[in-house]
Amino acid sequence: MAPKKKFTVTVLPDQVKISASYGANLLDALTGAGIALDASCGGAGVCGQCRVRLREGEVDAQPGARQSLDDYEAGWRQACRSDVVGDVVIEIPEESRIEAEVIVARRPPPSGQYLSKQKIESLNKGYTYDPTLKKIFLKLPPPTADDNVPDMTRLARQLRRDHGIKHLQVDLEVLRALPDRLRQSRWEVTVTLIYARAQDAFVEPRERGAHRPMLIRVESGDTTRRHFALALDIGTTTVSGQVLDLATGNELCTVNEWNSQAQYGADVISRIMYALKPGGLATLQARVVETINKVIGHLAENCGVDPHEINHLTAAGNTTMTHLLLRLNPKWLRESPYVPVINRAGAVNALELGINAGPWARLYPFPCVASYVGGDIISGVLATGIYKRESTALFIDIGTNAEIVIGNKDFLLSASASAGPAFEGGGISCGMHAGSGAIERFKIDPATCEARFDTIRYRPARGVCGSGLINVIAAFLEAGLIEPNGKINTAAETAIVREGRNGPEIVIAPAAKTELGIALYLNEGDINNLLRAKAAMYAGYSTLLEHVGMTFDDIEDVFIAGNFGNSLEIENAITIGLLPDINRAKFKFVGNASLLGARMLYWSGELLHDAEILGRMMTNVEFWDNHRFMEQYMAAMFFPHTDLNRFPNVSGRIAAGRNKCRRQAAGGRR
Amino acid sequence: MAPKKKFTVTVLPDQVKISASYGANLLDALTGAGIALDASCGGAGVCGQCRVRLREGEVDAQPGARQSLDDYEAGWRQACRSDVVGDVVIEIPEESRIEAEVIVARRPPPSGQYLSKQKIESLNKGYTYDPTLKKIFLKLPPPTADDNVPDMTRLARQLRRDHGIKHLQVDLEVLRALPDRLRQSRWEVTVTLIYARAQDAFVEPRERGAHRPMLIRVESGDTTRRHFALALDIGTTTVSGQVLDLATGNELCTVNEWNSQAQYGADVISRIMYALKPGGLATLQARVVETINKVIGHLAENCGVDPHEINHLTAAGNTTMTHLLLRLNPKWLRESPYVPVINRAGAVNALELGINAGPWARLYPFPCVASYVGGDIISGVLATGIYKRESTALFIDIGTNAEIVIGNKDFLLSASASAGPAFEGGGISCGMHAGSGAIERFKIDPATCEARFDTIRYRPARGVCGSGLINVIAAFLEAGLIEPNGKINTAAETAIVREGRNGPEIVIAPAAKTELGIALYLNEGDINNLLRAKAAMYAGYSTLLEHVGMTFDDIEDVFIAGNFGNSLEIENAITIGLLPDINRAKFKFVGNASLLGARMLYWSGELLHDAEILGRMMTNVEFWDNHRFMEQYMAAMFFPHTDLNRFPNVSGRIAAGRNKCRRQAAGGRR
Repeated sequence: MAPKKKFTVTVLPDQVKISASYGANLLDALTGAGIALDASCGGAGVCGQCRVRLREGEVDAQPGARQSLDDYEAGWRQACRSDVVGDVVIEIPEESRIEAEVIVARRPPPSGQYLSKQKIESLNKGYTYDPTLKKIFLKLPPPTADDNVPDMTRLARQLRRDHGIKHLQVDLEVLRALPDRLRQSRWEVTVTLIYARAQDAFVEPRERGAHRPMLIRVESGDTTRRHFALALDIGTTTVSGQVLDLATGNELCTVNEWNSQAQYGADVISRIMYALKPGGLATLQARVVETINKVIGHLAENCGVDPHEINHLTAAGNTTMTHLLLRLNPKWLRESPYVPVINRAGAVNALELGINAGPWARLYPFPCVASYVGGDIISGVLATGIYKRESTALFIDIGTNAEIVIGNKDFLLSASASAGPAFEGGGISCGMHAGSGAIERFKIDPATCEARFDTIRYRPARGVCGSGLINVIAAFLEAGLIEPNGKINTAAETAIVREGRNGPEIVIAPAAKTELGIALYLNEGDINNLLRAKAAMYAGYSTLLEHVGMTFDDIEDVFIAGNFGNSLEIENAITIGLLPDINRAKFKFVGNASLLGARMLYWSGELLHDAEILGRMMTNVEFWDNHRFMEQYMAAMFFPHTDLNRFPNVSGRIAAGRNKCRRQAAGGRR
Repeated sequence: MAPKKKFTVTVLPDQVKISASYGANLLDALTGAGIALDASCGGAGVCGQCRVRLREGEVDAQPGARQSLDDYEAGWRQACRSDVVGDVVIEIPEESRIEAEVIVARRPPPSGQYLSKQKIESLNKGYTYDPTLKKIFLKLPPPTADDNVPDMTRLARQLRRDHGIKHLQVDLEVLRALPDRLRQSRWEVTVTLIYARAQDAFVEPRERGAHRPMLIRVESGDTTRRHFALALDIGTTTVSGQVLDLATGNELCTVNEWNSQAQYGADVISRIMYALKPGGLATLQARVVETINKVIGHLAENCGVDPHEINHLTAAGNTTMTHLLLRLNPKWLRESPYVPVINRAGAVNALELGINAGPWARLYPFPCVASYVGGDIISGVLATGIYKRESTALFIDIGTNAEIVIGNKDFLLSASASAGPAFEGGGISCGMHAGSGAIERFKIDPATCEARFDTIRYRPARGVCGSGLINVIAAFLEAGLIEPNGKINTAAETAIVREGRNGPEIVIAPAAKTELGIALYLNEGDINNLLRAKAAMYAGYSTLLEHVGMTFDDIEDVFIAGNFGNSLEIENAITIGLLPDINRAKFKFVGNASLLGARMLYWSGELLHDAEILGRMMTNVEFWDNHRFMEQYMAAMFFPHTDLNRFPNVSGRIAAGRNKCRRQAAGGRR
């Protein structure tokens, strides 16, 4: 029997080190250390969900039943089938973690630059680290006859002496608890300060003093090691929350929840309509708060942070989401001329909103720019730091309402284009959200002209998600099964092109490979929905560039934000004309930039200030009454574009592919 | 029958003009115009309570049943017995007004300077009129495609353009109502702004920007003419409220209510003790808020201002009252070294405290200096402006806890002396509060050596109030019936000196003149209580003066504040040694200076700023461990003082009076 030697398992990305004996089962070792993996088969080696990836060292493992050799050689192991035999460094991908009711995080995309966390975080350069949420431990001298200043003065004086903090504002509830707290703790307390500003319509660019320290909590003894905040991305579809350990600067964990407002409408317009019904606004506000509280509940389970330990929340959301969260009437967001109630609502009491955090906690809603350019975009612009750069960058967040920002340190132009739900799998016959069983990667084998696809979590196909749809259409375009005008090439005469109830259809997945045993297909209406969506996006960039007299060649970086962006295959997006045909290296995926920006607010008062003036620096271009946008839109209603000179690398490929597969398809029938 | 010509009755001090027909009964005319007079006999001419005073013109009147000719010739008339026969100007003294449950206001004192309202208000000179609570009517341009800024930005922009107001903070509830309000009012609204600061431990003397405009209310149309605030004096015994019409700068009316906390203890120490019981603090807070709400209720009835029209309240109270109002733990106010929770609590939501005003209203508690020098004193110092004067002034507020301030523009010294309840009629055999039937004026007829007295409202005597007690003891001192050491002169052998259960007594009111038919008397214990109270006061001034190397001759003005001060007879107060024997013209009564200061905060942001830095300008001298205070106290335990050189104008008079009355008393027995 082998000696019971102890080895170290280092778990990425959390940097957690656990100890395991020789021969210990890796799944057991991780579970025993409180790291829960998804293992719905209970460790039987069947479900293939407890996937981890080797980064250094090796384990004694058997390949999974359904695992490919490539996958195994790339370092993927099933934890339940692996035993520890030495020091090892493993990475646990997000999708292997247990997160009940949590949306599956997807794999890195195969093209474009997927920036590392470190690279993403260093996009915004040149700010001073000066946290906006501080915990400070103070030792106060007890009162004497010669020094009998009020308790609050004693505390404020020490903060001024030791930390240079002045102009302290204090919550009444802190004052009510203060005298007992100070005396019970023998005058050794930890104070929590936030740098906050109340609702404010104007913040002058130079006026940093607008943010004043506010004392929201006094605890007995030294609690500086328990210091947490929550960064929230309030999406129309998904709410993401990330607990930050401000004592270490680490992100503890991230949880995603479907925004339960969605039951009242899939997009912001239907939410606004619902809000106008009697009681509708209160209901929607309650639903998003319920979702936030679910996120907080998961965080408590998954990373050991009690809701009452959350002292502050930052919420980045689009303008409608921000209005609904604060229970501000969104009615005029959707009526011309599209007027928000406020763009820069200041910090509000989380408790007043119904949020289950510390009763002293504040929620800071990210400032917005206009009715359809919200806090999520300011957050992204802050995160990517494009407002500080010499070179010009394009920032895009693709979705039902796609937001676009172009700019550099001298100018910022924003716009929002209504793309419709196609990018989120909506309005498509076999469309679905990016969940298990959604077709994501899709190829036509150039040799056989047969379709090959992968689904999320490798489940039987249930539908096509937004990014999958782009891949599907790009493949069919290149195969000549879809024409540049969006029509299905019925002349191809391959079995996958067929006549359906609403005209011609192309089969994406045969019945045998689907969950329900029914083939998945696209019809021309579906293709047209995507065509319109991509045309709106492309017209958006083009119009903004024209506005400042630039072309795509002037763009140094294209930052693609959002989960959708993360799974986008750049080459295919260019093929259909969603993205411009420029140097592929310029495309950079920044992931959930909204969450990233929300997180960055904690690192520096300068960034907080930047966030508030970004809205004023940005010129918002409205497309709804913009005739150039309409012209660009019409010009883009073609795969990839009516002007093929704009897509030199694509047009030849489509032409070649078309001929080839059309021939083969015809040959197949002979 | 006389022609039904209309005449004008001008009512002072309100300057209200009403119209009345020839021959109309004055009481009916006043009542019909909503001016309610006290007339407990229902206008039968019996109770003598509806007294008014002619200032110009005449009425057709019969003298009251109990009215003296002097009184009639001085212009006093009973409204119920007067008919209008021409234009007339009358004054309604405060005690003739109906104020249910309201404390009787008393007559101006016969000595010292009772300053006019105008003179009192001009004591603090040299500030810029710039109200801290503003109503501003705004006409906004409606949104257009070229100007679709958020509603809040539109409003703030107009305030900045038209009024130079920047850095606006806004309540979330205002934002929630804003879009509908703006559109329903066709973009014409009235905004209410307060200049507020949150709880703040340090305000720098130069830092005026600490006070930021806060938008608390938006109304449709132009409501600038309905613009009200409430100045409150939160006394341990009495809560006074005064509605200010900020549109005109007038005080609309004043109401006094017994502080219903008093059922849990008469003085601050017993209140603090009660607050320490389980639930005690919450109970006391609820009681004072209940009292404030009663005051607000009366104001609504008496001056037509709805509680929801009150947009702001300022509350001046001693440190304990301020703690209890805010529900701050007062425990350590009474334990050495006497530490408050906070001195400068900022504006709080009135609703949070339970106050029945506009739900948007804030309550600003006056800053305090120390545990026993509170906001009422800062308010008085602000009102009298002594902190701006070249010459040195003494400010005193006599009561259970007597507060004393000495200073000028270069220094301010404050102290509080525990005088015991004697000045409020407490701890005295026949003591009572200053209500109906309380003996107030008291004289020994020099010819007959018989006692003469008046009671409040001329009712049968029920007891002696604090100011009456000073008059009684001064009279007995001058008559030689009380010795300078506080003993009763049993050698006098007059019928009013008698032996009681607890030693010798002096009868103040014979049984025939009292309500209960039982004689009212003083014993040596009572006299000693007053002796200790006045010694504490006198030792207080003396110690403070000594502290800065000054004497009473250096004092140019003595400002006497409070209702007690208002009814104080200066000469008698000097006779007993409560006030120093200096030029009588230096004594100035400023009435309820606490209320006055609370009111002044509305006139100027400068005064608000002054109020907050006054606490820092003031050096508080603690007497509890001060040996010089104890020495001065012992030296003052004599009527008027052990050092008779300090009272040159009194000592001879006491000696002369003593000999005279002692002789007469003896002669009377012959």
